[in-house]
Amino acid sequence: MSLPEDLRIDLGRFAQTLEASSCIGAGREGGMARLALSDADREMRDLFVTWCREAGLAVRVDELGNIFARRAGRENDLAPVLVGSHLDTQANGGRFDGIVGVLGALELVRRLDDIGYETRRPIEIVNWTNEEGARFSPPMICSGAFAGVYDRDWVRARRADDGPTLGEELQRIGYAGAAPVGGFVPDSCFELHIEQGPILDAEGIDVGIVTHAYDSHGFRVQFSGETAHAGPWPMERRRNALVAAARLCVLVDDIGWDFAESGGKSTTARIAAWPNKTGIVSDWSEVNVDVRHDDPRIAGIMAERIVRAVGQAAARAGCTGEIVERWNWGGAIFDAGLVAGVREQALRLGHATRDLPSQAGHDAYFLARICPTAMIFTPCRDGITHNHREDVALERLRAGLDTLMHAVVARSQA
Amino acid sequence: MSLPEDLRIDLGRFAQTLEASSCIGAGREGGMARLALSDADREMRDLFVTWCREAGLAVRVDELGNIFARRAGRENDLAPVLVGSHLDTQANGGRFDGIVGVLGALELVRRLDDIGYETRRPIEIVNWTNEEGARFSPPMICSGAFAGVYDRDWVRARRADDGPTLGEELQRIGYAGAAPVGGFVPDSCFELHIEQGPILDAEGIDVGIVTHAYDSHGFRVQFSGETAHAGPWPMERRRNALVAAARLCVLVDDIGWDFAESGGKSTTARIAAWPNKTGIVSDWSEVNVDVRHDDPRIAGIMAERIVRAVGQAAARAGCTGEIVERWNWGGAIFDAGLVAGVREQALRLGHATRDLPSQAGHDAYFLARICPTAMIFTPCRDGITHNHREDVALERLRAGLDTLMHAVVARSQA
Repeated sequence: MSLPEDLRIDLGRFAQTLEASSCIGAGREGGMARLALSDADREMRDLFVTWCREAGLAVRVDELGNIFARRAGRENDLAPVLVGSHLDTQANGGRFDGIVGVLGALELVRRLDDIGYETRRPIEIVNWTNEEGARFSPPMICSGAFAGVYDRDWVRARRADDGPTLGEELQRIGYAGAAPVGGFVPDSCFELHIEQGPILDAEGIDVGIVTHAYDSHGFRVQFSGETAHAGPWPMERRRNALVAAARLCVLVDDIGWDFAESGGKSTTARIAAWPNKTGIVSDWSEVNVDVRHDDPRIAGIMAERIVRAVGQAAARAGCTGEIVERWNWGGAIFDAGLVAGVREQALRLGHATRDLPSQAGHDAYFLARICPTAMIFTPCRDGITHNHREDVALERLRAGLDTLMHAVVARSQA
Repeated sequence: MSLPEDLRIDLGRFAQTLEASSCIGAGREGGMARLALSDADREMRDLFVTWCREAGLAVRVDELGNIFARRAGRENDLAPVLVGSHLDTQANGGRFDGIVGVLGALELVRRLDDIGYETRRPIEIVNWTNEEGARFSPPMICSGAFAGVYDRDWVRARRADDGPTLGEELQRIGYAGAAPVGGFVPDSCFELHIEQGPILDAEGIDVGIVTHAYDSHGFRVQFSGETAHAGPWPMERRRNALVAAARLCVLVDDIGWDFAESGGKSTTARIAAWPNKTGIVSDWSEVNVDVRHDDPRIAGIMAERIVRAVGQAAARAGCTGEIVERWNWGGAIFDAGLVAGVREQALRLGHATRDLPSQAGHDAYFLARICPTAMIFTPCRDGITHNHREDVALERLRAGLDTLMHAVVARSQA
């Protein structure tokens, strides 16, 4: 039996779950501060798992805390259709980023239950651990490990600026699960997410069809110098690692400006130094930066400029510099057939769509390396995100959520 | 009775106290990490107080943890001669910085006791709290409060990057004393300190007569921006407070280079940002910087350039910037008569001397505002300080310590 064409998600029920989420780890007014593997993240996970169990889903947690909630199909030996996103947020995050994708998946499963609808393939809702990378850098390492891009133990050893490792925090909050990381290839993967850009909002379109991803290059860079007194030590002999870090940040910012006209961006996201105290020159520093561009060739040029900038910044401060970590994602990664299927469902439901690229990072990027993957974007007001003012009228999420439901079900019958 | 001309400090006994100090809060090999009001600072204070009590001194601790150890004189209504420095260190500090001045004062008192020598005025050894400013910025705030430059409660409210306030840490380690801060004017103040520059070591001279202090201007600057996503948010709309901070650091570094030929220096000492995480633009940052020059007029020009740089850095990052704290010290602050007296004692003892300015900050600077003050410098190898490799042959401290003893006693008889 095919899904009734007029079936729509229950926006009120979805809104209740979103409202409950918004109360767990609330940050600045209207925003969220639910960092990965914090107490608030645990509380949200517990609630999500409860909801999943109440919906009759079989919940399993893998060794990196990724949560899978399985709705059985008619043929349970078939690979499942994955649908989800992440429940963690930035320190000054919004109520929608990631969360809409997980709770939207829950809602679609509940809606199928409402009408007793059975799919051929099983459907698995997924909540990926630490998508944001706000607490454990780089981002998306747990979906990355699922896809075989990162080593499980390397991921567990990532350390937060506030002290513990990802593995220690998984243990602490009780989400170091028993299921192996990865070990199966999903049939396909769907992720619905707010756009995190202004296009859909500005154009009044509610369903964004994600065609490809901006090419992003991320770097963690360390500089080494020598401590000395802030007073008598001559400029010529100073090896201030904090100055090297600052010079790199400025050079990286300049790179972003040089490519701004064609939509390029650069970000200085994080800086750390030691001793980082009044009266003394620091002998160690660390910087996280990234560059992004729609054109992979230009993104590559920007990244190469960063590599050179590390040497320049180090030399001008009398320090040594080293790129200790580097990551890259993006490109034409989504499955053309799956993307076309999403567009078709949206149009069939009567929604205007807009093709657009994704500029942020998403777990779907790593899933796309192992199975056909597609993303749906919903609007967010003025493109504001990673900010407590992130917002969107609930009504504008409906079209995307309905499209997700019909696209997932269509695939799960195939 | 005048002090026997051939009286000399007991270098072996002094060395034992220095060795004991070096074991409390040891840092990297050969160095110290005894930050103000840490557990290690408490342990050192406890040992110092024990030594003082064993020497029959009357110990009192003021409300900011400054420790005074009083050796009575014949006329105890007279204002005391103060002699001391500080026992706290930088996070990568040396075994001599500050410590030699306190333990040298203890040794001179012990030496007077050896021969039963009585002075006219009382002598008070002093250990100032948080001279370094490494944990609670700015530096020298507790001697500053003693001299009436800073308000006691403002000082107690200074907060460490690791969390607690200075007042809370004083309570925690049991050094929030009962004595009021200040409230008396010392007859005079002497501070012996390692030079923290290369001159005495290079010239083979062991007694530096400090004529004046480099003019230093310190600033704490904050920038405000807006959090946003590191990906989609256009360069034109970014207000990255971390970029503003980095731009200020680079501009400040450039100021130091522009005046390096005439001995000017600039330091970027500390940077902080929030959220300071991968994937998000920071909306808050803070920077501590300073500039120093022997010529107060040029130091003033350098400081004015920093003021303008704050506006430039903020504007280029789309942020607002504010100087939230500013400090200044230096100039011709020492007492000509007292300085001449120190030089005279050194020459009488047969030591070559060298007049030189002080480039670092010292508690004596604030004392000089309320009573005649003089400083004695001893060599340090290659001028290395605020570094675990800070070092000097003990034998090269002897001349300075003897000069200190004779100068203090001469003054205490006057």
